[in-house]
Amino acid sequence: MPLTTSAFTDPALANRTSASAPIVRREDHDRVALVVLDRPKSRNALSDAMLAALAETFSGLAEERRIRAVVLAAEGPVFCAGHDLKEMTAHRTDPDRGRAYFADLLGRCAAVMQAVVNLPQPVIAAVNGTATAAGCQLVASCDLAIAAANARFCTPGVDIGLFCSTPMVALSRNVAPKHAMAMLLTGDMVDAAEAARIGLVNRVVEPGRERPEALVLAERIAAKSAVAIRHGKRAFYRQRELPLADAYHYAATVMTENMMARDAEEGIDAFIGKRRPTWEDQ
Amino acid sequence: MPLTTSAFTDPALANRTSASAPIVRREDHDRVALVVLDRPKSRNALSDAMLAALAETFSGLAEERRIRAVVLAAEGPVFCAGHDLKEMTAHRTDPDRGRAYFADLLGRCAAVMQAVVNLPQPVIAAVNGTATAAGCQLVASCDLAIAAANARFCTPGVDIGLFCSTPMVALSRNVAPKHAMAMLLTGDMVDAAEAARIGLVNRVVEPGRERPEALVLAERIAAKSAVAIRHGKRAFYRQRELPLADAYHYAATVMTENMMARDAEEGIDAFIGKRRPTWEDQ
Amino acid sequence: MPLTTSAFTDPALANRTSASAPIVRREDHDRVALVVLDRPKSRNALSDAMLAALAETFSGLAEERRIRAVVLAAEGPVFCAGHDLKEMTAHRTDPDRGRAYFADLLGRCAAVMQAVVNLPQPVIAAVNGTATAAGCQLVASCDLAIAAANARFCTPGVDIGLFCSTPMVALSRNVAPKHAMAMLLTGDMVDAAEAARIGLVNRVVEPGRERPEALVLAERIAAKSAVAIRHGKRAFYRQRELPLADAYHYAATVMTENMMARDAEEGIDAFIGKRRPTWEDQ
Repeated sequence: MPLTTSAFTDPALANRTSASAPIVRREDHDRVALVVLDRPKSRNALSDAMLAALAETFSGLAEERRIRAVVLAAEGPVFCAGHDLKEMTAHRTDPDRGRAYFADLLGRCAAVMQAVVNLPQPVIAAVNGTATAAGCQLVASCDLAIAAANARFCTPGVDIGLFCSTPMVALSRNVAPKHAMAMLLTGDMVDAAEAARIGLVNRVVEPGRERPEALVLAERIAAKSAVAIRHGKRAFYRQRELPLADAYHYAATVMTENMMARDAEEGIDAFIGKRRPTWEDQ
Repeated sequence: MPLTTSAFTDPALANRTSASAPIVRREDHDRVALVVLDRPKSRNALSDAMLAALAETFSGLAEERRIRAVVLAAEGPVFCAGHDLKEMTAHRTDPDRGRAYFADLLGRCAAVMQAVVNLPQPVIAAVNGTATAAGCQLVASCDLAIAAANARFCTPGVDIGLFCSTPMVALSRNVAPKHAMAMLLTGDMVDAAEAARIGLVNRVVEPGRERPEALVLAERIAAKSAVAIRHGKRAFYRQRELPLADAYHYAATVMTENMMARDAEEGIDAFIGKRRPTWEDQ
Repeated sequence: MPLTTSAFTDPALANRTSASAPIVRREDHDRVALVVLDRPKSRNALSDAMLAALAETFSGLAEERRIRAVVLAAEGPVFCAGHDLKEMTAHRTDPDRGRAYFADLLGRCAAVMQAVVNLPQPVIAAVNGTATAAGCQLVASCDLAIAAANARFCTPGVDIGLFCSTPMVALSRNVAPKHAMAMLLTGDMVDAAEAARIGLVNRVVEPGRERPEALVLAERIAAKSAVAIRHGKRAFYRQRELPLADAYHYAATVMTENMMARDAEEGIDAFIGKRRPTWEDQ
């Protein structure tokens, strides 16, 4: 039975979002956490409240050893519309305050994206509908992504005079530069099939199947040793930024420690003995 | 009505190219500049004169705020054959002079390629025929590329004992390493469909349609805020070379400044008000 | 007539592998060396003996100017099963000795992978059957790869509690991050067609054709100037790790020296004279 965290019904947030229901809903399916953006009427925009709710959700998950994989989904026809433009414009009354607010907003948004990357658990986006600008960045920031056949992706900041500069950080680390540039310069929609072709998502499924398929995939990952996954995921993103020889030196150190862990001993013994391993996550 | 710059009819260049017609033709289509390599009989080779003409063209365009996007095309069945081998061999009479000439030549060529990357306006290659060696590098250096179905790409330096080392800088930043290595080690032609599949070009169109389609795409980009595009393009190539956290810090700074610009204010207001924005390009 | 090196029948190695036949077989086809992992019963696992044999083979090849290209193949239905788990567990009797052994093992393995990258000659993997974990890393480390249609690739360390951290160094430099992560987090098999689609191999051929096709490709590369290939291959991997401007500066220096070499002079003269070049490999 799914649990729902109540963290995001605190009065300050509820006040900002004019709603008592949590803006980010979390349902735990055994050892997999399903995190759902739940403001379909606001197209799940990354408002101050939404960013705070996501930051708190990921911060909580990072400490919960019980949860071994995360699925990130959204309610309604829009996966995530990016920043909340109305909220942003409300802060532009004064240049100095505006600049300070935007810098802070983009810092908080980048922190949420990096929280996904830095989360010990793998995060799988289950994308229905449209992922726009920072919404597209959110998908690009996930470790894996499954898209409904009618999902679409775009970075249309140019159409409002605001180039998707922070979304491109994640996007350009997922796809080839000419593919990224086409999205960034035109703002055009990329459909799910094209997104799969260029590497922005892993797989396309029938609409409505993206969430169950992502949960199945998450459960499969949850059945692995969490300690191996945790160290492996972290090492993946770190070694990418190193020259080849340094990357090997670093990865060999990580893998040696992994090898000395209880779970590797158990896993190898189970493999040789043709039995299922029992992970202790250490 | 297209304008033609006359910069490249100066006697020194004309003398070298044995022609009074400009070696690089520029036709402005309103706010889009169509830059055409126009030495089909020399297979549009990157001779000293061609490099000088391209350098001057891009240098001029960089200062012209009126021009908001650039299409790079070529006359004749060969898009660009790479360096001018006859001209190169003529400088090999003496080892010291030869080395100095080649180093200078490759420096000038790399400067032209980086001028494309650093140009404030997006550059779209419209590729007909064959793009060889430094010609392939030129396509790889553009932000976007549309290829005719009969276009072909190769880096066949190995066949003449001269590995395409500078072309590979651009090529290996466009496509996966095994794809780049296959082209570099074999010199084999890659057809347009394969070029699209591996990320060297964005799209394949019927022969003869590459230039009109590139112009339509350029005009669509020209309709966006030029200040947003300019800062966004520059940030794209800079952030690619940074570690993730640094990239986010840098991109957030760029986007905050973009947000404070007049065009972002206008763009967001227009979007919220459901009207077309009027850019002031600041 | 193929030559077989006898280096790997030395008693110490033979003792470990319980076999007098060389564990890595080398057959020279004129100027192409075919290197064959030849322990099909051990699924060509990268045991201490196999790593030593590969290290010695590549170290020897690096000095042999006569050999101009290398094909890496394997006997039996498994291309390479990765590390030898039984051998590894035998060293875990004591934590300190275990850690020292694993660190040394991973260092030796990474050195073999980097020996492929640093080998002056291009290396083409001819993949039959399954390439697992460090076996997949070996394919990813090659410059080019041809796969039989029934070849498969996986990095299933997670299933034994041991994340494929060193394999991911090579894998993540071949394919897009979400593709790499899917393989690393699930351990799932990727078939040959998918491997070609994501850039892990260049081409898929009928089973049984992978070795002859790789040899034909190797011979085509062997017909080029070895000095151009040697400097070009080295420059490829070095320039990838540099910022764009530095990469151009470095590549221009490499290409200038290449240009001054005898083979470039001959190659260009032959091209202009429409005759076949005669390489002196200098």
